[in-house]
Amino acid sequence: MREPQQDRSRATRQRLLEAAVESLAEVGYAATTVAVVAARAGVSRGAAQHHFPTRADLFAAAVEYMTEVRLAEIRAQAGRLPSGPGRTEAIVGMLAEVYTGPLFRAALHLWVAASTEDGLREQIVRLEAHVGRQAHRALLDVLDVSERTPGVRETVQGVLDMARGLGLAGLLSDDSARRRGIVRQWSRILDRELLSGPVGG
Amino acid sequence: MREPQQDRSRATRQRLLEAAVESLAEVGYAATTVAVVAARAGVSRGAAQHHFPTRADLFAAAVEYMTEVRLAEIRAQAGRLPSGPGRTEAIVGMLAEVYTGPLFRAALHLWVAASTEDGLREQIVRLEAHVGRQAHRALLDVLDVSERTPGVRETVQGVLDMARGLGLAGLLSDDSARRRGIVRQWSRILDRELLSGPVGG
Repeated sequence: MREPQQDRSRATRQRLLEAAVESLAEVGYAATTVAVVAARAGVSRGAAQHHFPTRADLFAAAVEYMTEVRLAEIRAQAGRLPSGPGRTEAIVGMLAEVYTGPLFRAALHLWVAASTEDGLREQIVRLEAHVGRQAHRALLDVLDVSERTPGVRETVQGVLDMARGLGLAGLLSDDSARRRGIVRQWSRILDRELLSGPVGG
Repeated sequence: MREPQQDRSRATRQRLLEAAVESLAEVGYAATTVAVVAARAGVSRGAAQHHFPTRADLFAAAVEYMTEVRLAEIRAQAGRLPSGPGRTEAIVGMLAEVYTGPLFRAALHLWVAASTEDGLREQIVRLEAHVGRQAHRALLDVLDVSERTPGVRETVQGVLDMARGLGLAGLLSDDSARRRGIVRQWSRILDRELLSGPVGG
């Protein structure tokens, strides 16, 4: 008879984590208190505090959860990519979508908050290193290139930074038309770079 | 006899704007109150409120000031760029420096705060559009390319987004070694792209 209770507890925890990410993305770090997240999740404050005694605990877990969701999204989308011409543009477009979605927005709020809050900084630095490595590997995989080829590592990392910059550019206003043009052009550049071997070597 | 007083008033205003940018970069948006900025500038709170009656006034002026400082920095550095080989890397390196400095950090705090504060959003959207256009034009100028060539506009905008992403990546930890590698590689890509004409026909 313990199973259903464990399931309920897991479902409550999951709702709290989702609510924390949603709240961060929508109202930012300062306004995302445990009470706000509990209300959003439809959970009593007592139950929320049972799962996450402090706000730092809640964010640490939400950060873990965000990582898993982001990586699962990337893996799921990667399997549905077309082959042949248009594949690179689909990949770069997918990347731009991940970095303009609510998870990046939530992460951005934590990122900026962490720059002035020492208690948060260490966790977020660790998260971003982890996510950065995973995104880098996933991108090498779907592009089917090896970073043993000189320059490929830095080319691909620059594309990830570009996606991060596009995420920032889309934070306050609709940047989708400009973004589409950049995704198309840089996909062509990437095709040419990755097919033509090391640059300047 | 009015001149010295006007000078003093201008100097006080300037100190307040510099202090606002420094404070934003160091302690973030929430902690940057008018009182904090006045103390940092060594100005009485009354004098600060004479110049900037509200916090919104202070940020609006600081945002203007940041724009001017950023653009003056770019123009000053552009005049000292080398010619011939290495010029593109010097340009992209300069860009990465601008986007990892305290002005970008201050702007980033305002940017993220503006995403959840309607009163700030409009001003920051206008600022970023203005700065983005100016940075785009400055980059076309120093690279000596025209956006009438198909693809050049999107290539150059992607580099600006990449620089923005580098700024974000350097917010919480020292990212300079990784950044140098990306700057070098993307400069080579840029040289090849801009010399070889439109990509993909």
